[in-house]
Amino acid sequence: MSGRSGGPEIDQLIQLLARLPGLGPRSARRAVLHLIKKKETLMVPLASALDRAVDSVMTCQNCGNVDTISPCHICTDPKRIASGLLIVVEDVADLWALERAGIGAALYHVLGGTLSPLDGVGPEDLNINSLVQRVETGDISEIVLAVNATVDGQTTAHYITDQLQSFGVKISRLAHGVPVGGELDYLDEGTLAQALKARTNF
Amino acid sequence: MSGRSGGPEIDQLIQLLARLPGLGPRSARRAVLHLIKKKETLMVPLASALDRAVDSVMTCQNCGNVDTISPCHICTDPKRIASGLLIVVEDVADLWALERAGIGAALYHVLGGTLSPLDGVGPEDLNINSLVQRVETGDISEIVLAVNATVDGQTTAHYITDQLQSFGVKISRLAHGVPVGGELDYLDEGTLAQALKARTNF
Repeated sequence: MSGRSGGPEIDQLIQLLARLPGLGPRSARRAVLHLIKKKETLMVPLASALDRAVDSVMTCQNCGNVDTISPCHICTDPKRIASGLLIVVEDVADLWALERAGIGAALYHVLGGTLSPLDGVGPEDLNINSLVQRVETGDISEIVLAVNATVDGQTTAHYITDQLQSFGVKISRLAHGVPVGGELDYLDEGTLAQALKARTNF
Repeated sequence: MSGRSGGPEIDQLIQLLARLPGLGPRSARRAVLHLIKKKETLMVPLASALDRAVDSVMTCQNCGNVDTISPCHICTDPKRIASGLLIVVEDVADLWALERAGIGAALYHVLGGTLSPLDGVGPEDLNINSLVQRVETGDISEIVLAVNATVDGQTTAHYITDQLQSFGVKISRLAHGVPVGGELDYLDEGTLAQALKARTNF
């Protein structure tokens, strides 16, 4: 019992919402009460938006993005295809983050994670074969490895670089440095050292 | 644009989820990605739970609780009716909180807020008339005013006490005191003074 006194419908809704990241039982209860209070303006639209998403959302067979068509809107955009730029990311959230940053026309490839021998994640568990195939057959001129700056992320970047070496495509990675708006005092030494090494003319 | 690159279905879902209390655009995006990843085990059940809730959830005409029937399960429970105990709360969340506390058989009355002249909330905006009617016609022997210990809450409690004075029903309020597990050092002086005044034998 989630701690309420209506029908099982409300209980079940609370339990399902509590499974979303960032929500727990308490905030799920608050969310359900809010939904009930705003039934016509929020609960009904949310119910139909979810129904539509269940029916239409799929994973792009080409790049791993989520969309309502496959190949997705990004993979079929002539401007992005013409750019020849392919950005490799760990997951869809990273793709969305880069798109929000307005980085210009680029294609993406979603790995679906990082290599992690300790967790039993090998190359065959990630979309690496499909990446190699895309580079082999497509008009890709440059690949940016936009993986996280973690040990697993960097391991994955090295592995992919090895796999793609023979195709003569340019491979780069995101710059390390001081985040915009960041204070030096709060940065770790590794980042500071990298930022100094990669200093640019003012 | 919520910052993604799929169809409008995903965008709309993010925007609606971001309107839930406790969620913002960032956590709504994370929630939607989680839903898409767990399509069969979470997104589909959540969509149908919402559909069922839209169809079935209503406000109890008697007490203001939310349930799938009206009068609700609480109002029609013979054990609760026999108790003669009516607990007045500000909103449904408070009712749920008391039920989780396992306080035993009791009826409830949900006011829907507190009197607040500054915000233009008068007695006619709350379920006070229906409370008076319930006390007038029902077998209520005791009323507990379980409103928040705020100025508005206490004002509301006084107003309700005035309205019910003529019925000769016993009216009490929740005890003030030290929260279970609470440290004295962190409590305000008002609570400490009340807790001392209402001290009990050990």
